[in-house]
Amino acid sequence: MSRSRPDAAPSFLLVRELGTPGDTLSLDDENGHYVTRVCRARVGETLSATNGRGESAGLTILSLEPRVVVRLDSVRAETADREAIVWCGTPEGSRADWLVEKLGELGVATFQPIDCARSRWNLGEARLGRLRRLAEAALRQSRRSRLMRIEPSRPLEDLARAVPAGISRWLADPAGARNALPASKATSIVAVGPAEGFDGAEVALLEALEFQSISLSDGRLRTETAAISWAAWWSSRPSR
Amino acid sequence: MSRSRPDAAPSFLLVRELGTPGDTLSLDDENGHYVTRVCRARVGETLSATNGRGESAGLTILSLEPRVVVRLDSVRAETADREAIVWCGTPEGSRADWLVEKLGELGVATFQPIDCARSRWNLGEARLGRLRRLAEAALRQSRRSRLMRIEPSRPLEDLARAVPAGISRWLADPAGARNALPASKATSIVAVGPAEGFDGAEVALLEALEFQSISLSDGRLRTETAAISWAAWWSSRPSR
Repeated sequence: MSRSRPDAAPSFLLVRELGTPGDTLSLDDENGHYVTRVCRARVGETLSATNGRGESAGLTILSLEPRVVVRLDSVRAETADREAIVWCGTPEGSRADWLVEKLGELGVATFQPIDCARSRWNLGEARLGRLRRLAEAALRQSRRSRLMRIEPSRPLEDLARAVPAGISRWLADPAGARNALPASKATSIVAVGPAEGFDGAEVALLEALEFQSISLSDGRLRTETAAISWAAWWSSRPSR
Repeated sequence: MSRSRPDAAPSFLLVRELGTPGDTLSLDDENGHYVTRVCRARVGETLSATNGRGESAGLTILSLEPRVVVRLDSVRAETADREAIVWCGTPEGSRADWLVEKLGELGVATFQPIDCARSRWNLGEARLGRLRRLAEAALRQSRRSRLMRIEPSRPLEDLARAVPAGISRWLADPAGARNALPASKATSIVAVGPAEGFDGAEVALLEALEFQSISLSDGRLRTETAAISWAAWWSSRPSR
């Protein structure tokens, strides 16, 4: 069976501190393992990397042992003219893992878990760490230059006190307007309820903040499906 | 913690043969268990059901033991004026399960696994049965009246010989046109390559069949993410 490089092994690294062209960098153990064992790269081959904050770089492998050392050939900065933010209640079971992976692939900037009246997250350090590693894998997979931020969970009322101005606001709601998503050029935020739904007070709070109710499908969507559908809409729109 | 009925237990059944209003029906073991143990429904309560082929019904529970017996109160038929069809190569690992669940929730009519030059499905009876059960669960979850068909896998060349006429055709392709998805009122089909991608001959075959290349995101999407993103687009469009 003839194969190109499989999706699992894109030669695209997350290197938190890139430096400037001409620099040599010693990769950390995780990236080193990835380059030697997964990509099976050789000395002289080129790789791409990002710092996860909008900079991408071209790298050349100088040596593989004892550590992987690369030369930084070029650095390119991308400006983000808009961002997508997802406020999300708890999905059922282990669906948060998949949700984070998909939102990361689709280029969401911030995943903000929200604690709701009917359901709260249980995100300790270990679980947050796991979700952040999934976001890193999604960044490599989709070759993006910005890493999705995974915030600790917060109550909706806290978040509601500080919604940034000039931001387009959406509330995923099966009873909302259909086909209402415009080609948005602005930073956008969506609020998606937990599997048990937002309660009446939460919906009223979001409506007071001018979140617009939209229906993303003609059927009832699970929490994670609504969040992914919204992100797919956002991601399919050109930014300029 | 106050809760409405959780997502996991919507009182919505798949009953393959509904009959006509006034009929009494004895539910099979699976639906009976669902009604008594998951929904915890009682005699006199009402339920909804679909036959998975466009008919929905209102039911009243007449008895719970020894079997669940219901009366058919009403039947409503929904016409489908358009359908979504997904031709899909193999995703990595166990991602097909999630993919099928999400496509079912989003209202895709047919999931057609395709065997490609670089990767083939391995769908025996057990695996097909599992995917079909996931589609049934997604139908109940999303309260749809049409069950997604899961076809056995077929080679792309076989499928290419019989693409129905008058159908809108799309090829998910990171290098394709951005923002090219119109508000489609027609039955639509998307071809999504396996994790390893379509090979050149497969792309040429699809292009000869007038599949239009579209990019669904500014990043590279996994097989299952591309399929779900396309279905989310399709599902967000009103049908009339």
